[in-house]
Amino acid sequence: MTEVESSLPDRMAVSEFLVGLQTRIATKLEALDGEVQFRREEIPRPGGGVSRPWVAEGGPLLEKAAVNFTHTEGREMPAAATQRRPELAGRNYEAISVSLIVHPRNPYVPTCHANYRFFLAPGEDAASSVWWFGGGFDCTPYYGFDEDAIHWHQTARAACEVHSPELYPRFKEQCDRYFFLPHRNEPRGIGGIFFDDFSEGGFDKAYALWRSAADAFLLAYAPIVERRNGITWGERERDFQIYRRGRYVEFNLLQDRGTRFGLEAGARTESVLASLPPQVSWRYDWSPEDGTPEAELYRDYLRPRNWADEAP
Amino acid sequence: MTEVESSLPDRMAVSEFLVGLQTRIATKLEALDGEVQFRREEIPRPGGGVSRPWVAEGGPLLEKAAVNFTHTEGREMPAAATQRRPELAGRNYEAISVSLIVHPRNPYVPTCHANYRFFLAPGEDAASSVWWFGGGFDCTPYYGFDEDAIHWHQTARAACEVHSPELYPRFKEQCDRYFFLPHRNEPRGIGGIFFDDFSEGGFDKAYALWRSAADAFLLAYAPIVERRNGITWGERERDFQIYRRGRYVEFNLLQDRGTRFGLEAGARTESVLASLPPQVSWRYDWSPEDGTPEAELYRDYLRPRNWADEAP
Repeated sequence: MTEVESSLPDRMAVSEFLVGLQTRIATKLEALDGEVQFRREEIPRPGGGVSRPWVAEGGPLLEKAAVNFTHTEGREMPAAATQRRPELAGRNYEAISVSLIVHPRNPYVPTCHANYRFFLAPGEDAASSVWWFGGGFDCTPYYGFDEDAIHWHQTARAACEVHSPELYPRFKEQCDRYFFLPHRNEPRGIGGIFFDDFSEGGFDKAYALWRSAADAFLLAYAPIVERRNGITWGERERDFQIYRRGRYVEFNLLQDRGTRFGLEAGARTESVLASLPPQVSWRYDWSPEDGTPEAELYRDYLRPRNWADEAP
Repeated sequence: MTEVESSLPDRMAVSEFLVGLQTRIATKLEALDGEVQFRREEIPRPGGGVSRPWVAEGGPLLEKAAVNFTHTEGREMPAAATQRRPELAGRNYEAISVSLIVHPRNPYVPTCHANYRFFLAPGEDAASSVWWFGGGFDCTPYYGFDEDAIHWHQTARAACEVHSPELYPRFKEQCDRYFFLPHRNEPRGIGGIFFDDFSEGGFDKAYALWRSAADAFLLAYAPIVERRNGITWGERERDFQIYRRGRYVEFNLLQDRGTRFGLEAGARTESVLASLPPQVSWRYDWSPEDGTPEAELYRDYLRPRNWADEAP
């Protein structure tokens, strides 16, 4: 819940942090790819704010990747954002976020997603201002590696410990709950952390936790890319990857609040849907044969596990 | 609105008609394809009813097609079905439907969709029973042909005239309104007819209209398939087709009430999502160059037009 503060949250600092985060992540992903660059665009948002959708396509690593910065100044909170805070319906607000997704070409490199956002509904003074942080990152492998899953979650846990030791289990569980496809009774991947509506400890402390979670993304993802991007793959792995990407589309269009919020709030459709994979297939009533690496994904990785506590 | 009747609607006749319709349509599509057959499955529905998801994949025409019969016996109307009839929330109901989609391999053959459904919430007598018909068919070309669009809509208009001349313009307009992607500000295709909650004139008259609309599907689609399936196509047309199929996925997962109803009502996910295309791509911020046949689709076909009144 939001705390009463003696001063307004420093939205300029938050905005500058996210601007820098976008550049850091895009630059590192370009270095990992070695060939493609993000198209660095800036588009004013009708009604106020700006959107910087940076998208890279067609690289040896980055088959498609989007790292989007958005600063929305809105007149009326859309329904998707106020489900749990009906008192904010209709109020002015600002939302600043970086949202990113990487669809690697190599099926041995997991798809990953991260999002860091700050909401502010300014009041007449600090006490009536409402703000919170949200964010997290999650990982969706096509072929599972214990080593990667453990590293991903241990990095996430370390990021949360700047605030308090009880955050990681909470955020991990929220991630498992959020990135879940009820119609498939299936998690989207191996999870990570996810939090929303976070202001615990006041602005400075919540902001520090959130920055730590943001900095953790590259620490979690880059070593996995470096370990797996050299593995040789063929048609079989590619077929499975583009089949599994269908689940990603289903999640983003059926479940994801960010996508619905973006489309409802009138965000630029191409920016919101830049998260969708470059190539996807749906096969009817397909499932992998027992004993295959593809079946192993379902059995061992597509279920909540306490990865951070497993031996590396 | 539902009329007060002296007798209960003949749900057995409706069910038998739909069972026959499924066979007629599947058989004709197989004949047009010449190679693949529908996998004819029957699956009991937990809680009552049966589902017959018939899917064909990998044919020269039928890259993927589904013709599904479903008979649902439900304890509580799900929210998606009662938005406009809150008085039915929680009542027992039966829903019988045939729903079909064809994703042809040749980009010159349009994707098409049709759905015919009957809802019945039985009361203690005829007067308190609530029932209605719904249905329609719509067409989504990748490359437009005036001749096909005119034929499609004139067939739809003729089907509606068994009931009254004012139905076609209403149903056509409902189709244009329903098969629309607000986030793209774009119709799904060239439309057709769409109706829901239809009981005008009482059971016999409404049933006759609905059967006429169901029989019209093959009359509308088969000649188009025959005209276009022989046209040679290459990578360019294929790329455009699988790009445009992305819009189909967006519509089905973001907008379509049938899909949401199915998933909310606990229908078998693979049957509901059998409508999704076999291969799809999302390219970032792409649009066709002016003057190309692809640009012509947007300019001339992806807008509501009174096709039935145009000269053939």
